[in-house]
Amino acid sequence: MSLANRSLVTIDDLSNKEVEAVFPLADQMSDSMNRQSNVCQGKIMASLFFEPSTRTRLSFETAMHRLGGSVISTIDVNATSLAKGESIADMARVVGSYADIIVIRHPWEGVAKVVANYAGVPVINAGDGSHEHPTQTLCDLYTLKKERQTIRGLKIALCGDLKYGRTIHSLIYALTRLGATTFLWPGPGLDMPENVKQKLITEYGADVEKIPADNLPLLVGSQDWAGDASLDAIYITPSRAHQLALIPDISIPIDLVKEYDALYVTRLQQERLTATAEGQELKRDYPVVDKKLLKGKEFKRTLVMHPLPRIDELAYEVDADPRSMYFKQAARGVPVRMALIALLLGAKEVDITEKEVSPAQKRAYPFYRRDFGVSCPNPSCVSVQETETRYIKLEFQIVTNHPLTLRCVYCEHEIYPQYIASSDWHQGMLKNKKYHRADSHWVRKIKPENLIVFDSESRAQSHGFQPSNYASQR
Amino acid sequence: MSLANRSLVTIDDLSNKEVEAVFPLADQMSDSMNRQSNVCQGKIMASLFFEPSTRTRLSFETAMHRLGGSVISTIDVNATSLAKGESIADMARVVGSYADIIVIRHPWEGVAKVVANYAGVPVINAGDGSHEHPTQTLCDLYTLKKERQTIRGLKIALCGDLKYGRTIHSLIYALTRLGATTFLWPGPGLDMPENVKQKLITEYGADVEKIPADNLPLLVGSQDWAGDASLDAIYITPSRAHQLALIPDISIPIDLVKEYDALYVTRLQQERLTATAEGQELKRDYPVVDKKLLKGKEFKRTLVMHPLPRIDELAYEVDADPRSMYFKQAARGVPVRMALIALLLGAKEVDITEKEVSPAQKRAYPFYRRDFGVSCPNPSCVSVQETETRYIKLEFQIVTNHPLTLRCVYCEHEIYPQYIASSDWHQGMLKNKKYHRADSHWVRKIKPENLIVFDSESRAQSHGFQPSNYASQR
Amino acid sequence: MSLANRSLVTIDDLSNKEVEAVFPLADQMSDSMNRQSNVCQGKIMASLFFEPSTRTRLSFETAMHRLGGSVISTIDVNATSLAKGESIADMARVVGSYADIIVIRHPWEGVAKVVANYAGVPVINAGDGSHEHPTQTLCDLYTLKKERQTIRGLKIALCGDLKYGRTIHSLIYALTRLGATTFLWPGPGLDMPENVKQKLITEYGADVEKIPADNLPLLVGSQDWAGDASLDAIYITPSRAHQLALIPDISIPIDLVKEYDALYVTRLQQERLTATAEGQELKRDYPVVDKKLLKGKEFKRTLVMHPLPRIDELAYEVDADPRSMYFKQAARGVPVRMALIALLLGAKEVDITEKEVSPAQKRAYPFYRRDFGVSCPNPSCVSVQETETRYIKLEFQIVTNHPLTLRCVYCEHEIYPQYIASSDWHQGMLKNKKYHRADSHWVRKIKPENLIVFDSESRAQSHGFQPSNYASQR
Repeated sequence: MSLANRSLVTIDDLSNKEVEAVFPLADQMSDSMNRQSNVCQGKIMASLFFEPSTRTRLSFETAMHRLGGSVISTIDVNATSLAKGESIADMARVVGSYADIIVIRHPWEGVAKVVANYAGVPVINAGDGSHEHPTQTLCDLYTLKKERQTIRGLKIALCGDLKYGRTIHSLIYALTRLGATTFLWPGPGLDMPENVKQKLITEYGADVEKIPADNLPLLVGSQDWAGDASLDAIYITPSRAHQLALIPDISIPIDLVKEYDALYVTRLQQERLTATAEGQELKRDYPVVDKKLLKGKEFKRTLVMHPLPRIDELAYEVDADPRSMYFKQAARGVPVRMALIALLLGAKEVDITEKEVSPAQKRAYPFYRRDFGVSCPNPSCVSVQETETRYIKLEFQIVTNHPLTLRCVYCEHEIYPQYIASSDWHQGMLKNKKYHRADSHWVRKIKPENLIVFDSESRAQSHGFQPSNYASQR
Repeated sequence: MSLANRSLVTIDDLSNKEVEAVFPLADQMSDSMNRQSNVCQGKIMASLFFEPSTRTRLSFETAMHRLGGSVISTIDVNATSLAKGESIADMARVVGSYADIIVIRHPWEGVAKVVANYAGVPVINAGDGSHEHPTQTLCDLYTLKKERQTIRGLKIALCGDLKYGRTIHSLIYALTRLGATTFLWPGPGLDMPENVKQKLITEYGADVEKIPADNLPLLVGSQDWAGDASLDAIYITPSRAHQLALIPDISIPIDLVKEYDALYVTRLQQERLTATAEGQELKRDYPVVDKKLLKGKEFKRTLVMHPLPRIDELAYEVDADPRSMYFKQAARGVPVRMALIALLLGAKEVDITEKEVSPAQKRAYPFYRRDFGVSCPNPSCVSVQETETRYIKLEFQIVTNHPLTLRCVYCEHEIYPQYIASSDWHQGMLKNKKYHRADSHWVRKIKPENLIVFDSESRAQSHGFQPSNYASQR
Repeated sequence: MSLANRSLVTIDDLSNKEVEAVFPLADQMSDSMNRQSNVCQGKIMASLFFEPSTRTRLSFETAMHRLGGSVISTIDVNATSLAKGESIADMARVVGSYADIIVIRHPWEGVAKVVANYAGVPVINAGDGSHEHPTQTLCDLYTLKKERQTIRGLKIALCGDLKYGRTIHSLIYALTRLGATTFLWPGPGLDMPENVKQKLITEYGADVEKIPADNLPLLVGSQDWAGDASLDAIYITPSRAHQLALIPDISIPIDLVKEYDALYVTRLQQERLTATAEGQELKRDYPVVDKKLLKGKEFKRTLVMHPLPRIDELAYEVDADPRSMYFKQAARGVPVRMALIALLLGAKEVDITEKEVSPAQKRAYPFYRRDFGVSCPNPSCVSVQETETRYIKLEFQIVTNHPLTLRCVYCEHEIYPQYIASSDWHQGMLKNKKYHRADSHWVRKIKPENLIVFDSESRAQSHGFQPSNYASQR
């Protein structure tokens, strides 16, 4: 099956079968690494990096060179036309007319989706703000697969900055989809964002359970740093039944975590922290994985993983330990990216006979596409940037109406509008232009195609709507 | 005919025949774009960009890769030895000993000429300050040729920043040379510089006529932004007779502009504006091309062109219009640059049997090469930069003596010295060292090789010259 | 003989025979420059530049492209993960898993050694702070060899910034090893550092003699700038006897310098100067090589060399002089680096039958590896940087004990600890934990493996040592 002309914006653009089909091709690439390949000869990859990066950019560029292709590259926001106020869409169209495939990293969330919409060639998201970094996830999964033969049923603890770490977000979706159980081990103040957890439940059928830390001494190893923290354990129910009821009984978790398969460590994403003071505090209390921690018997055969770069959260003394996987992970980025590039350029095919829809295709939420009422509340979202609002159409998925939840199609942040109205109530009749509270029973009566939402009463009134009798009551 | 080892510093380095011979080769390149070429295999292009750029740099690099060549690249003024105070000439000589061809962009005007003087390999000017950007012009002409089959006789309106936009300067010279009629439609305060207009007249035999705006309602479409502005229409007389006398008669212009063939829009070159206040004001009143404007019947089949990047001057709503050409223009930059690189490297030849001299070769002005008396008044000229004055010889063409006009050979800015003397008057005799006013009759009596000019009396006196009886009178 | 998988961190990593064997291969490369080579096809070079550079980076990248290989490149400290606080070692390991060979330039001294320790692939030092720049030296030697057929016996004056100029340090070691006599001609305040001179004596058996300037009018040409300066002349005694006794007799030096073979000029390394005031002063009095100087008869056939970039120290008027070699030097950087890369990648071999150990291998100094007592006093040394101290083991060679001298294995700066102790004196017995002065007779009695050193009494006492009776006396 060909993946030609597809883009990889989020890990959900690939079906489970497609994800797993990348790995044998990566094995092939790995075996032929030292022979000059001509798989992608005559093809050009544009490598557009608008944020600092060594590893990811060089890894992609190495992959393209090893495939026999060429690379054109832009490194810095100051060195590009964006400094002249050009939009992402214009850049995408132009670069798409030069190159055969585009790899992009950008601090704004949703940029890769915009580029994919406009470029006309396959686009790979190499990190968009705190949103996603799907090829890192492919590398992580590939390492798990190589070391444990399967991902289904693995027990994996995610440790550190679960709030800003985009690698973590892509990874937990993928692990959950592929049948692994994950344990969240955030640094203080760095919990997994609610919208990510919510999505795990609604989109992947995961159970998210909170376990008080004092019930789980063994679960968390010698977690000195998180004495008073509580722990989230996420159990997934992929296609099989949910067999592990989580009750406040110490025996089950202990049994469950007799041994971790992997401990995935991440650094504090300092560049995402707004206040310096916040950064200093978070830094001080940030968890550290070291030899002492890894002496715990639950870590006996645990793969220690890290997307790198590391700062202080993973001690150098672990490097020589056979459990350390992070340099292998980095090295494996090259064959994985070679496989992916070759697939999206149509130079290779995946060995899948029956088609399976990807999670991104599977979602059938109705859309909210009005250009008024609400805008994305995420200040890093591409859709609210000055240079982009001139052309980007606001677009939200209506995820649920209890409570009413819209999800930005660009950055996937969620928004909970407080007021609603319906476009079929007031056909020309001004007195019918009423708005209601979003938590009233009206929310279930308005068809999605008629739904109008407002984030405030003043916004509703500025559009000529009047409060219903109960709109202003709490 | 071979163009091997030639440089392209200004569009005038190519003859009309050579310009038009680039296009069929670009067609060939375009057709074979997806096959890896080995036209320039083993050749190295140095891509030296000392100003922000995505499009131009990536376009050149793409072109070289598509030809099978390699690229070495420098992006930023801070990342280069120039930060250590190295001269352009030294850099040119060194890089010329590495690469087979050099592409350079630089904020100083005239840099490409200096590089061409010293590098020993072909040099392509990818933009030198506000001076020229000849490959953009080739791309623009190529689009006109593709869409209209010929350039001769086309009617083209140039809109926006005609003052700082270097693409516009190269373009208007070329359009005029190739027989198109252009209409100037500047943003307020952003008129075509006088020296450019002057050069159109003196070098290309163009007629430049000013038409009061109120006489030309249809000419300018729905030009709300330029209510009180006057318009310049430029009629050229290439090799044929001048058949359109421009008289203040409304009927002729209206007839003339029944339909524009192209509307060429440019952005405000904010990076060339010194004062922020100026920038803000110019920005506010800057013309915008949008759907409403394009509804005018004179734009019915008009090609909407733009060198990109755009900011606000060209509405996104035009993108979907079949008249919009700007993304095609950008895409065509690759085959045009492939053709040019292949020609200058001698890997391809142009199909021209009889030689035609280029405008640059045609000019036979005498030179002023004294290292005193005047220097280039353009603060962005390469010849007056601290690191360059150590070796650059000042050199001016004596364009005319009514009024006495010198043109800097580097940046092509013009200078009007106020005082003159002759070196043959004072052979050792101090009392004969007199200077006169440049607008006196003496200016016609001094042979160019004897001419000495001064921009001020104090300068003349500091070189030991005394005023003639009338020198100080007005 | 293969040099595959070796690194070039200092020029001493190559034996004399190996250095000289690079040159015929460079000749070969030079002859086939215009034919696309496939010597290194399918190989990837990582070009990691953390300091401004045009020449060196583009030269290396050109070399790799001319060999048919590919390049991945990082230019600026701000554009890399180092901005996130990553260590050199981590970067080295990751990039080493992507590329087949690494070229690195970095402002910290010793970085190339750390990269070589961790990368797992050959590493070439393209300049580490003020430490070394060995490929520049290879290019310099290659030019001498091409122009004079041999290096042995040449008389070479080194002029300018001998303090901060790393090219000079690598060069003088190599010249001395290969049998040339060098004359030091420093700008005021820019003498060759003592540790470099010391190393010339102890490691290469050179004689370093100081000659009062007023005795040597002819030696130094028209050295207006250094009226009161004294001159160092360095005579080497390679394998032959020392035949030139240096006595304060004017006749010998004059005879000696009847003619210089080369005058090697360097620019002021302004970026290494901490205080602006210092920079201004040094700049004002900096020596300038110009036509007038070169009229001296001792310069009649002298090769004028410069590693470039130049600023003001070498007048442009010399460029046209046939004695000027600096642009040839730069151009020759490409074939020399092609030869070196091909050798380290194992794609070519050197024509040497009998093995000769390199100076780096020859040194058999005992090591001081304790993580206390002293640290490297060089603030630019990689071993004392905040991000690096987490993993770098301090390591010093014990060069001599009269006076006790330790040399940092990373930056090669020397340190003279004031206090010593021995680990075998105090086996569990606190009263024996005494320290002595380093210039006492005890220094000769302590075995190197037992040596403990302290840079201060307070440091010794903080480790529980007590002063011996004489420790505090002067």
